[in-house]
Amino acid sequence: MSDTFSIARLDAGDAGFPATLERLLDRGMATDQRIGGIVADIIADVRGRGDEAVLEYTRRFDPFPAEHMADLEVSRDQMQYALEQLPARQRQALEQAADRIRQYHERQGLQSWDYTEPDGSRYGQKVVPLQNAGIYVPGGKASYPSSMLMTAIPARVAGVGQIVAVVPTAYGPDGWLIFAAAALAGVDRLFTVGGAQAIAALAYGTASIPRVDKIVGPGNVFVTAAKKQVFGDVGIDMIAGPSELTIICDGETDPDWIALDLFSQAEHDEQAQSLLISPDAGFLDRVGQSIERLLPQMERADIIRQSLGDRGALIRVRDMEEAVNVSNTIAPEHLELSVADPDTLLQGITHAGAIFMGRYTPEALGDYCAGPSHVLPTSGSARFFSPLSVYDFQKRSSILYCSEEGADRLARIAEEIASDEHLQAHALSAACRYRDTGLT
Amino acid sequence: MSDTFSIARLDAGDAGFPATLERLLDRGMATDQRIGGIVADIIADVRGRGDEAVLEYTRRFDPFPAEHMADLEVSRDQMQYALEQLPARQRQALEQAADRIRQYHERQGLQSWDYTEPDGSRYGQKVVPLQNAGIYVPGGKASYPSSMLMTAIPARVAGVGQIVAVVPTAYGPDGWLIFAAAALAGVDRLFTVGGAQAIAALAYGTASIPRVDKIVGPGNVFVTAAKKQVFGDVGIDMIAGPSELTIICDGETDPDWIALDLFSQAEHDEQAQSLLISPDAGFLDRVGQSIERLLPQMERADIIRQSLGDRGALIRVRDMEEAVNVSNTIAPEHLELSVADPDTLLQGITHAGAIFMGRYTPEALGDYCAGPSHVLPTSGSARFFSPLSVYDFQKRSSILYCSEEGADRLARIAEEIASDEHLQAHALSAACRYRDTGLT
Repeated sequence: MSDTFSIARLDAGDAGFPATLERLLDRGMATDQRIGGIVADIIADVRGRGDEAVLEYTRRFDPFPAEHMADLEVSRDQMQYALEQLPARQRQALEQAADRIRQYHERQGLQSWDYTEPDGSRYGQKVVPLQNAGIYVPGGKASYPSSMLMTAIPARVAGVGQIVAVVPTAYGPDGWLIFAAAALAGVDRLFTVGGAQAIAALAYGTASIPRVDKIVGPGNVFVTAAKKQVFGDVGIDMIAGPSELTIICDGETDPDWIALDLFSQAEHDEQAQSLLISPDAGFLDRVGQSIERLLPQMERADIIRQSLGDRGALIRVRDMEEAVNVSNTIAPEHLELSVADPDTLLQGITHAGAIFMGRYTPEALGDYCAGPSHVLPTSGSARFFSPLSVYDFQKRSSILYCSEEGADRLARIAEEIASDEHLQAHALSAACRYRDTGLT
Repeated sequence: MSDTFSIARLDAGDAGFPATLERLLDRGMATDQRIGGIVADIIADVRGRGDEAVLEYTRRFDPFPAEHMADLEVSRDQMQYALEQLPARQRQALEQAADRIRQYHERQGLQSWDYTEPDGSRYGQKVVPLQNAGIYVPGGKASYPSSMLMTAIPARVAGVGQIVAVVPTAYGPDGWLIFAAAALAGVDRLFTVGGAQAIAALAYGTASIPRVDKIVGPGNVFVTAAKKQVFGDVGIDMIAGPSELTIICDGETDPDWIALDLFSQAEHDEQAQSLLISPDAGFLDRVGQSIERLLPQMERADIIRQSLGDRGALIRVRDMEEAVNVSNTIAPEHLELSVADPDTLLQGITHAGAIFMGRYTPEALGDYCAGPSHVLPTSGSARFFSPLSVYDFQKRSSILYCSEEGADRLARIAEEIASDEHLQAHALSAACRYRDTGLT
């Protein structure tokens, strides 16, 4: 391991801690104008030239030498074939993960309801699945069949009419895993297209790629910028940044376990963030030693080293109450409560995407197979975003039915407020249901 | 009435109808680059200079000559005083509306839940209200106490910790209505600040205006552009366009009622859209005659005339099935089913913000007091957005607790998929919970 490597040690009791933490958490969410401009051009081009533009960008950015749009679509038969060709071990693991993800998400979902008032008026909400949804699965350098399951299964459970998945070139042996996962998740149409061009195609449609009503799933900065730009013309789930993990530990978990948990987050990419909070300074030392000892044995040691060195920290706190406060300031995507009694701590947690309780629940189990989607709010956005879910693939309509008697009663209220707002036609539209308006 | 006025008459059976409808519906949602640039500058300025910038923009754009930020805050005592000064009729109407809005929204809201597996593992979701929310209430030329109720009450029902409302200068007699509505709705802090500067202040905070986690509520094009730009740094509800109404009528409702319903939408502003769909050509003629007769009696006749002339239409369809199909293509914000049996039609409706059932439920009742929020998805976005609701002011965290036995079982699945994804640290983080990893 490089001599220059070190992970920051912070103490929440230091006067400068809040400012230091803020700097550490600064995730550069500010719009990069250059990326925004590139993405705007790609979107305009795809809107204007459709498939032709999608094909050009794909050939430019992705290694697969597609000649026709048909080369970029993977049929249901091909997905199914990929699934059937998988080694049994791989297939079984994906199937078990898919089953567990399905079971968790079947407990979600809004229901329609209504109620009737004494005068016969009826109010309610009608809940229906989206007609169609676009799933962005990141790829390119790596292949994430787990992300296919974690995005498409909640959509399927919601009853989405048509699921259209896109993934950057997924050919080669790893590509088969993606196709197999798409088969398992029940994806209807799959295109090996990525980047801003894929988002534009899903948002506006091309001759080959259907327009969808909502686009979900994480991607790189171009994908994220594209999702933000098309938002409003189409629904999106959230704005994603680099992945992060915060661990609160009482000092009693095996420090090697904690080091590996931190590594599992850090190995994603150099911008990933791994933070450990503990009131036990000796334990932080021991985790630091585990990190030093284990890091050279990691296949992705270079990425982990840079991620931990640039963005990681071991944070000492006074007590568990301060640990919870620091965590709430971070509003982490993933939060491990590696303590004896996680339920007590849980009550104080206000912001976190997913909370991993106890010493036997490393984030990695949630990444793959525990059940809840691993698509989670990043970069502090757990203050307002929620994990991807069945709710994301449903929408509501408000239902209002006034009986004649009910309309009479409501019209008197509406007429008064409408008059106060100087909206005469509103007042008359309400009033005409119960009295002579005096109009000629 | 001007001789040049006419409302478009369309027939869904015409070959050119789909293209004509598409042109009619074109709501110019495409980002206006000029507005986007102005708004970006305002946001950057408010982020940089805080209160000073807010004060300057307010003085520039709004008529009230504020000298200090304190002039722009309305205290709880002032809101309460405004409520107490209201004439009884006004106060009673607002109170009745507030009660009904509260009662409807109390039926919404997600619950926390969890379940325990046979091995003792536990999974669930924890639902909490947002810590704080920003409410944008449109104003400026008019005053909309109803919008204050329709946005702040769902937030209050959700249990939001702090509700911060902003409204463009609301002084003068009408301003009192807004302050009174804020008191009734339980707003915690109220600022008479509007436009992009208000959105920027809520998103990033200033010395006077607290940063919030989510901003909801409709506004003009500058407000909408600002909401889109800050999205991701803060949550937002939806991207709003001009308001619109589609009515499906079987021809048996009083044509004057239908004309007034169309007027009530059209009087909002020139960009508002009012559409009537009916299989009865004679009825469309009669509504056309009602429009001509009643329009000159409207206080806002000029706005209505331009709105109906530019964006309105009376659309003949073959039958009710075609009426439903045309409506689903429109995906209207407000949909009136002015027919004998609205429940039968309802089943076929896939996209609509709010659905007003039967002849006695004009949109105006929903605008003020029926119960559901009048903040609804516009411009076809009912394909993916939903009415503002209690759900908008809640967020979820996924909860995962693995027992030792559960971790053993899951780790085997996770290890396999992690290996397939070439993420060794993920595999080891899972594996170390149940076996010797072989690390030294």
